[in-house]
Amino acid sequence: MARLLVGPRDHGPHLFIVQLRFLVDGKPLPGIKLGDIGLKMAYNGVDNDFATFTHVRIPRSNMLTKYAMVAPDGTYTAVPNNIVLTHSTMLLGRDIIARVAVSQLAQATTVATRYSTVREQGYGPDGIELPIIHYKHQQSRLLTLVAKSYAMLFAAKHCSAVYKRAMKQREQGDLSVLPYVHCLTAGLKAWSTGEAADGVEDARKCCGGHGFLVISGLPDIVASSAGMATFKGENYVLWLQVGRYLLKCVDSVVQGKKLHHEMAYLADETAHLKHGRVAGSSAQQTGEEQGTDFLQRDVQLEVYRCRAYRLIQAVHGKVRGSKKTPEEAWNEHMLPIITASRAHVEYTVLRTFNTHLSNLKGSISAPLELLLEKLCSLFALSSITNSCTVDATSFIEDGYLSSLQMSSIRESVNGLLK
Amino acid sequence: MARLLVGPRDHGPHLFIVQLRFLVDGKPLPGIKLGDIGLKMAYNGVDNDFATFTHVRIPRSNMLTKYAMVAPDGTYTAVPNNIVLTHSTMLLGRDIIARVAVSQLAQATTVATRYSTVREQGYGPDGIELPIIHYKHQQSRLLTLVAKSYAMLFAAKHCSAVYKRAMKQREQGDLSVLPYVHCLTAGLKAWSTGEAADGVEDARKCCGGHGFLVISGLPDIVASSAGMATFKGENYVLWLQVGRYLLKCVDSVVQGKKLHHEMAYLADETAHLKHGRVAGSSAQQTGEEQGTDFLQRDVQLEVYRCRAYRLIQAVHGKVRGSKKTPEEAWNEHMLPIITASRAHVEYTVLRTFNTHLSNLKGSISAPLELLLEKLCSLFALSSITNSCTVDATSFIEDGYLSSLQMSSIRESVNGLLK
Repeated sequence: MARLLVGPRDHGPHLFIVQLRFLVDGKPLPGIKLGDIGLKMAYNGVDNDFATFTHVRIPRSNMLTKYAMVAPDGTYTAVPNNIVLTHSTMLLGRDIIARVAVSQLAQATTVATRYSTVREQGYGPDGIELPIIHYKHQQSRLLTLVAKSYAMLFAAKHCSAVYKRAMKQREQGDLSVLPYVHCLTAGLKAWSTGEAADGVEDARKCCGGHGFLVISGLPDIVASSAGMATFKGENYVLWLQVGRYLLKCVDSVVQGKKLHHEMAYLADETAHLKHGRVAGSSAQQTGEEQGTDFLQRDVQLEVYRCRAYRLIQAVHGKVRGSKKTPEEAWNEHMLPIITASRAHVEYTVLRTFNTHLSNLKGSISAPLELLLEKLCSLFALSSITNSCTVDATSFIEDGYLSSLQMSSIRESVNGLLK
Repeated sequence: MARLLVGPRDHGPHLFIVQLRFLVDGKPLPGIKLGDIGLKMAYNGVDNDFATFTHVRIPRSNMLTKYAMVAPDGTYTAVPNNIVLTHSTMLLGRDIIARVAVSQLAQATTVATRYSTVREQGYGPDGIELPIIHYKHQQSRLLTLVAKSYAMLFAAKHCSAVYKRAMKQREQGDLSVLPYVHCLTAGLKAWSTGEAADGVEDARKCCGGHGFLVISGLPDIVASSAGMATFKGENYVLWLQVGRYLLKCVDSVVQGKKLHHEMAYLADETAHLKHGRVAGSSAQQTGEEQGTDFLQRDVQLEVYRCRAYRLIQAVHGKVRGSKKTPEEAWNEHMLPIITASRAHVEYTVLRTFNTHLSNLKGSISAPLELLLEKLCSLFALSSITNSCTVDATSFIEDGYLSSLQMSSIRESVNGLLK
């Protein structure tokens, strides 16, 4: 991949095939410097190399010309939507990474949970030593990670299915769904790898000194999942890409255009009305749900939907209404853009969890179904109260959930931990 | 260290000197098995070994008898407060670890900040590439870590001074302050190492792929700081020890006893009244601070003080008012105990930052003083709005801070990032 310059024009990065070494002795050709980038935090079995080129001449015929080419006279022609097309390979990469993140989190959580059932500390009333899973804080950390693993698994399955459908449509020349798929894969990659890296590290901490030993397997999972959160798009950059798409969606609503059906909630007046109803600061206007109401899946989903709706609309107003240049306005409001993007992805993940549960109904045993439903609730509610949720405060600060409701939610989480 | 059993009585762990190897060839003596615990996540230059003893006989004279001894007839005698005394070495260990955590966080933050000023990505309006520190989210992550490093540094200095004073008092036979010092060192160890480990990892992520390379120095700091958060008392266990002391303090208030002066706020009726005034859910009753009021250090401190007061009093009521056994009540309310403990430590850290600033006044240049004051405000406010603050929601869920106030706080943070 190199920048294509034709005379004074820069056409951006294109693909070329370049011979790197002499065929006789394997040494680099003149002007080419090759090397290894050195030790990494993980994946040291993979050799990541670098290559630098100084005044290396590549014949025109070495350019890969499926989507763009240069004629002998220097005329440049390219297939329209080239960028969208070349992006689709990256989408596949992100889709795969989101799936790898699931297995890392599930693996570490399994190790830590098993450990917690055999490692004993402290005595019960009968003088028998207790396994550390007995303690509420250990349960809280591990079970929320189990719930999150399932949420991540179902979201990854959903993402793969959407990606496959989109690739079929692409083959038929329909590129319309690609921006949505780009948002979905970017958001899920950022969310899954970020949550997995944090979760894996917390699972390691749950095992105390034993988790610090390489033999536990956990240090390797920690370092690998740190890698997942780092490459194939730095997560904060991906959050901003999600945000860019979300703001465009709201633009489309304003312009009366139709949205992809999974984004249609941004045009849904009821969410707006609900938001309008509770935006007044008096406590009487907050939602009326109490106690076990929060164990209802539609109530949970509504909390996430309204939060995402409110944050996206609010940041759209800020960015589009700014008197600064678009770039300056974008930079100024970067933090609420990221928060809104996370809220959208968290809503998507919860919705996917719910859809998968509905689809599984009848095909799995009743006890398993009940268990998955409990995990779904635990994921939904603990992501509101949990310490690690980014901007958990946005759930409540505008009075959408009152203090009394928050304690109901906490008690529900506590109950689910039994 | 081994359990001392005299006949049927178990006196708990005591210290013994044991010969491990034959003097001639260095091989282990009969019944003794020695080995290395294997590769760890970090600190592999330190050899952590294990030793097991099977029917090994140790002469009575090998017991260290400063604080406890066994007569030839089996009579056991011990100095009173033995446990408090032996704990004091552990306190020193925790005090040192809290100081190491500071340097780890400051080191990683320095690397990431310097990197962000030279690494370029994206173009400004004049077509010149921008260093990534230009972007608001990068600033937000790094500058809050700089602010946190200073908060941690001043807290560590305070902790060392308190520890040294306490050791002097101990030499004069006064052990009264040790429970307070135990709470302080446990809390600061848990807070500093936890925040440092998370912060160091976020600083690494701020450097993208380059931070994944061992040559950046960051992977080593990440692994070492993970160690600090793991050993010398697992952090969750330490949070519970802090909680135990806090509940005892409230017991003392109820019994009319005097508290250590740094805990006196738990007996302060004004905090209670303030809480009472705002606990009613109507928005009109929240504090009246707005906008730049939140840049006033006494306002910030009051927010933290009231939050800690409210959480500690609330969990005290729950645990002491429970109809379950003390152990069951303790386990049932473990999560709010940990939240209350964190709130107390965060209040202590902010107070210490303020005290150090007041003490430095006049002895440092005016620009440096101004900068430290900005960092103090950034620490105070970003710990309320920051995604990584545990239970950030507890600041607002009972209506202590209204939605309007939260946006003032966010704007203040945004302003400080310039």
